[in-house]
Amino acid sequence: MKIVAAKKILKANDQLAAENRAQFDDAGVFGVNVVGSPGAGKTTLLEALFSHLKGRLNPAVIEGDIAGSIDADRMEKIGVPVVQINTDGACHLDANMIASAARELDLKGIDLLAIENVGNLVCTAGFDLGEHLRVVVLSTSEGDDKAAKYPAIFQGSDALFITKTDLIPHLNFDAERITADMKRLAPEAAVFQVSATGGQGIPSAAQWLAEKCLARARP
Amino acid sequence: MKIVAAKKILKANDQLAAENRAQFDDAGVFGVNVVGSPGAGKTTLLEALFSHLKGRLNPAVIEGDIAGSIDADRMEKIGVPVVQINTDGACHLDANMIASAARELDLKGIDLLAIENVGNLVCTAGFDLGEHLRVVVLSTSEGDDKAAKYPAIFQGSDALFITKTDLIPHLNFDAERITADMKRLAPEAAVFQVSATGGQGIPSAAQWLAEKCLARARP
Repeated sequence: MKIVAAKKILKANDQLAAENRAQFDDAGVFGVNVVGSPGAGKTTLLEALFSHLKGRLNPAVIEGDIAGSIDADRMEKIGVPVVQINTDGACHLDANMIASAARELDLKGIDLLAIENVGNLVCTAGFDLGEHLRVVVLSTSEGDDKAAKYPAIFQGSDALFITKTDLIPHLNFDAERITADMKRLAPEAAVFQVSATGGQGIPSAAQWLAEKCLARARP
Repeated sequence: MKIVAAKKILKANDQLAAENRAQFDDAGVFGVNVVGSPGAGKTTLLEALFSHLKGRLNPAVIEGDIAGSIDADRMEKIGVPVVQINTDGACHLDANMIASAARELDLKGIDLLAIENVGNLVCTAGFDLGEHLRVVVLSTSEGDDKAAKYPAIFQGSDALFITKTDLIPHLNFDAERITADMKRLAPEAAVFQVSATGGQGIPSAAQWLAEKCLARARP
């Protein structure tokens, strides 16, 4: 695992994001920007998806955190190549950080590059990282009103993963409400209900992700 | 309920925060900045605390949200004076927004002014609002590693409220780990474990808050 310190540069984020995407396309890498609140279950979801896709796709991860390498350590443990970005207080990743982190990866050997953003339902909405797909992760315990309260991040996402569905019996959570809000904000988006601990919903979510990835695979 | 649009001004945030605090002191208002992730249970905790303190303290709330008035509507429903701030995308409240919102409240009639910040474990750390106390709310379902991953917000807080303890039997959550991390980051901070739905822990948390508030009450 490499740790890259985030440094500000002047190049506009969108321009850099486009360069990242072109680089990923050249290498046959499918990039997925994973956003969500702290504790939504982003890392656990990735672990479950990678486990299910084992042997079909070669994954790698860029982990974005304010501090530390807790999530990257988890990825190393399951044998997934990982680069940790420490943002030193910044509330989101940007395209420049991704460009730096990508230099530490052997892109030619990677099919699926998951970029786990800083836990944040606000700041991450505004920054294209050069990904092909953005997925927003929301845990049932966060409540079914979050798309209404934080619309931008849902609006710009290609899929909603509702995690921790095993907790629903213990919560006042209406999956239909959040799904309806998501469909209103992002009519084309896919919505999955998953429990990474129990495994429910993981096969269909993994299948969707694999299809999206393979549709863009190198020729 | 009043809705105040957030407008940027040039005055430095810290100077404005000091002015807010002086204004609160003059009026005998005790200000509490409530921070935490989206869905940590900040609004539900406030409802439970206010219900427990009914007749002892006169509360009011300033609600900070990206969009909408879902939380303010909940406060209106329980009869608590409330002003909604819509930040129009900003990931935290600032002292200027609070100055605007405070103008819409009858401060003389308020003992405890809770300021519910935008759901965010990062951006809210850097902005003094003029409060007397900052409390960070973390739900058990977010995981026990959050103080390690988002240290700044915990470091600057006067108390940690661990919410949704009723979910612990269904989670892999170590209350001792997060408490130890909090004590390392903020040795003087109080730590409470509460379940707002079941009511566990609410009386002692409410008692602590009331004592803090009354210690600063108008002479």
